[in-house]
Amino acid sequence: MPAANPNRERSRVVIIGAGFAGIKAAQKLGKLPVDVTIIDRKNHHTFQPLLYQVALAVLSPGDIAQPIRAILHKNRNTEVVMDEVLAIDTTARQVSVASGAIMAYDYLIVATGSTHSYFGHEEWAKIAPGLKTIEDATDIRRRVLLAFEYAERQMLETGAHPPLRFVVVGGGPTGVELAGAISDISKLYMTKDFRHIDTKTAEVLIVEGGPQILGMYPEDLQKKALEQLHGLGVEVRCGARVTDIQPGFVMVGEERIESVCTLWAAGVAPSPLGKMLGVELDKKGCVLVNERLNPKNRPEIFVCGDLAHFEQDGKQVPGVAQPAMQMGDYAAKRIGLLAARSDKAAYQKPFRYFDKGDMATIGRKAAVARIVWPFHANWSGFIAWMTWMFVHIFFLIGFRNRYSVFLSWAFTYITEQDGVRLIVGSQNLPGWELLAATDNSDKN
Amino acid sequence: MPAANPNRERSRVVIIGAGFAGIKAAQKLGKLPVDVTIIDRKNHHTFQPLLYQVALAVLSPGDIAQPIRAILHKNRNTEVVMDEVLAIDTTARQVSVASGAIMAYDYLIVATGSTHSYFGHEEWAKIAPGLKTIEDATDIRRRVLLAFEYAERQMLETGAHPPLRFVVVGGGPTGVELAGAISDISKLYMTKDFRHIDTKTAEVLIVEGGPQILGMYPEDLQKKALEQLHGLGVEVRCGARVTDIQPGFVMVGEERIESVCTLWAAGVAPSPLGKMLGVELDKKGCVLVNERLNPKNRPEIFVCGDLAHFEQDGKQVPGVAQPAMQMGDYAAKRIGLLAARSDKAAYQKPFRYFDKGDMATIGRKAAVARIVWPFHANWSGFIAWMTWMFVHIFFLIGFRNRYSVFLSWAFTYITEQDGVRLIVGSQNLPGWELLAATDNSDKN
Repeated sequence: MPAANPNRERSRVVIIGAGFAGIKAAQKLGKLPVDVTIIDRKNHHTFQPLLYQVALAVLSPGDIAQPIRAILHKNRNTEVVMDEVLAIDTTARQVSVASGAIMAYDYLIVATGSTHSYFGHEEWAKIAPGLKTIEDATDIRRRVLLAFEYAERQMLETGAHPPLRFVVVGGGPTGVELAGAISDISKLYMTKDFRHIDTKTAEVLIVEGGPQILGMYPEDLQKKALEQLHGLGVEVRCGARVTDIQPGFVMVGEERIESVCTLWAAGVAPSPLGKMLGVELDKKGCVLVNERLNPKNRPEIFVCGDLAHFEQDGKQVPGVAQPAMQMGDYAAKRIGLLAARSDKAAYQKPFRYFDKGDMATIGRKAAVARIVWPFHANWSGFIAWMTWMFVHIFFLIGFRNRYSVFLSWAFTYITEQDGVRLIVGSQNLPGWELLAATDNSDKN
Repeated sequence: MPAANPNRERSRVVIIGAGFAGIKAAQKLGKLPVDVTIIDRKNHHTFQPLLYQVALAVLSPGDIAQPIRAILHKNRNTEVVMDEVLAIDTTARQVSVASGAIMAYDYLIVATGSTHSYFGHEEWAKIAPGLKTIEDATDIRRRVLLAFEYAERQMLETGAHPPLRFVVVGGGPTGVELAGAISDISKLYMTKDFRHIDTKTAEVLIVEGGPQILGMYPEDLQKKALEQLHGLGVEVRCGARVTDIQPGFVMVGEERIESVCTLWAAGVAPSPLGKMLGVELDKKGCVLVNERLNPKNRPEIFVCGDLAHFEQDGKQVPGVAQPAMQMGDYAAKRIGLLAARSDKAAYQKPFRYFDKGDMATIGRKAAVARIVWPFHANWSGFIAWMTWMFVHIFFLIGFRNRYSVFLSWAFTYITEQDGVRLIVGSQNLPGWELLAATDNSDKN
């Protein structure tokens, strides 16, 4: 097959993964005299911070995902390849993909992020799905909505239904957002929909193994978040270990907790592509990178985003969107300098994560925000939520997405209705077993 | 189990199917002193006339589908049951659903519409999907977009790709709309997305068994439609019989036509629920109904929409949205009179389909419209398209859907981009075999 770029005068850059780091790098490299190939298994970039809103039926998949080709179509030096990487040969400097094609590179950016980790209990994945992709989000939406449908049907048949308890395993930002949103839909949006069940009786429980929810946040914000969750009626158990997950219930230590729908927001594992590089990994499997985001002795390889283990001030930089984008940006700039054989490359400052802060929403009008830039502040409540909203709209890629999300939010906010409560997938209403387990036909 | 309605003073109405007829009937009955149960396998009503726009990535599923509960939540006398009907006992007057519940009725409306018919070749369904549900639409979207991705990948690997030919079997309104829309996306929206293939080289072929496309339309509009299709580069073969469909090709008579993606818009079969009534059916399986939309000797049963075979002026009323809505409306009114034991029931006029006309779009700015009301006219081209657009926005259920669709169309029209070209489902890029066949994991 022909080389990815027959014009050997220009350096060839291969980017694996079109998440925040990969897209940022591609956008930057699109303006430089290099040839770029970006490879992803999906045809779209997903704005992961809003995935939970797709899962809870506030937004549509199309609102938060954008075809990679559409994002990059102005970059005439860039190829988009929808394929799966099978191997990376760091000696021959080439990447093999499932279709059989082989892409040669001069510089490689690996930014394939992370996936769910069930801590060795992969069998839990079918019962308690996590939230990483559009498919995950529609699967979760289906399970949550069907839990209500199922309870309504049980009431109709037997006059009773098991408690509508939703268990979210993990009290990080995703867990908190999911829990708050489930509480919202059951207490606000769905109340008028059913005749036999009272959706307000739905219970939401967060089970967190650590001593606190939102471990990354300062203590006062953790406390505020807890208060806001309690205000929404969400129960939180910290220091609680999930020992088993079965259809219909969760074991926390020795205690059996009935659950009509269990969601997993507890653990992530780095993408297996890190291993393909044959370089040093940390215990979790993240690639250890130096201050130029290179693995040891591999100045032509850059690892960015969640997959990178980068330490700054003695702490690992967290696996969220901001550092990923900054890493992608840095790697692209550095490749630009190296490819131009610029003297500036030698003097380029090492990568440093510029921490602007973190935010997590808790339901419809509450959030916590740890703000570092442009000023220091810890905010919670409505003002944090407004900040969260504007920052997220601002960072959404694509004009269409931005207006669509803004209008959806405005609509939801004003009418207290959300409008995309569609269940797609299996046409047959499942029983408990099927409700809990995923069969393939439902995994859109 | 308790009866659907313990208050026996009010008549119980069961509606099966939440399409145009069922929803219209439910809306009407919601204001009358009866108790209503509406049963559907899906949790949402689908605005079928715009399904092809979901399939071709102009609209999102949430734009044209609305949860049944949300549409009817103001009708306090109405139950929504998401379930599958297994049997209808017309003697005991009760309906059994898959969950085991049994719903007694005093009046029954059956409006379950139709499904695809492959004329005895059910094996074609996997290769050439039809367009009836949201799941079908996202499946078709995936196949169409993957065909382009696959061609791009082949170019990258081998420097050549098979012709990008899309074959649409059937030249009715759905076939014409699908063909026009595929031509649009390949010639307008996707041109900038790929580096190696020229999406404009995509060919679209309609294979129609009958002597003309758009058989229901007057001759001059058929001709205009053909001209407009030719203008878009769509090839049309009439009087052509599809004898086999295989992954990668279609047999038309003895001729083998290569096809990267084959879509089925040729035949519909009435829903199998007609048979459960134990009444007289026509050859196709539609329920023969009298001028009050009742099967013979069953004045308490109403069959509405596609499933009904109703003749007016010697012709069968067509299976489209308008007659379905009018039938639903009529049945609801009649049930209101009968339930109130009103003398007016005896004098109620028979059902008569008030034909306002028909419309079919052909791509982005063209359409044909046979207008009967408020004046007679046969329109084609841009004016027909504008009419089509406003009528469809007007009839969309739900404010949110209406503004969202309007803005999506405005955006698409102005920017010549469509924004929801997301491929969801199988993460692995399939080869030809998989591209053509559906495995379960790809459904929706």
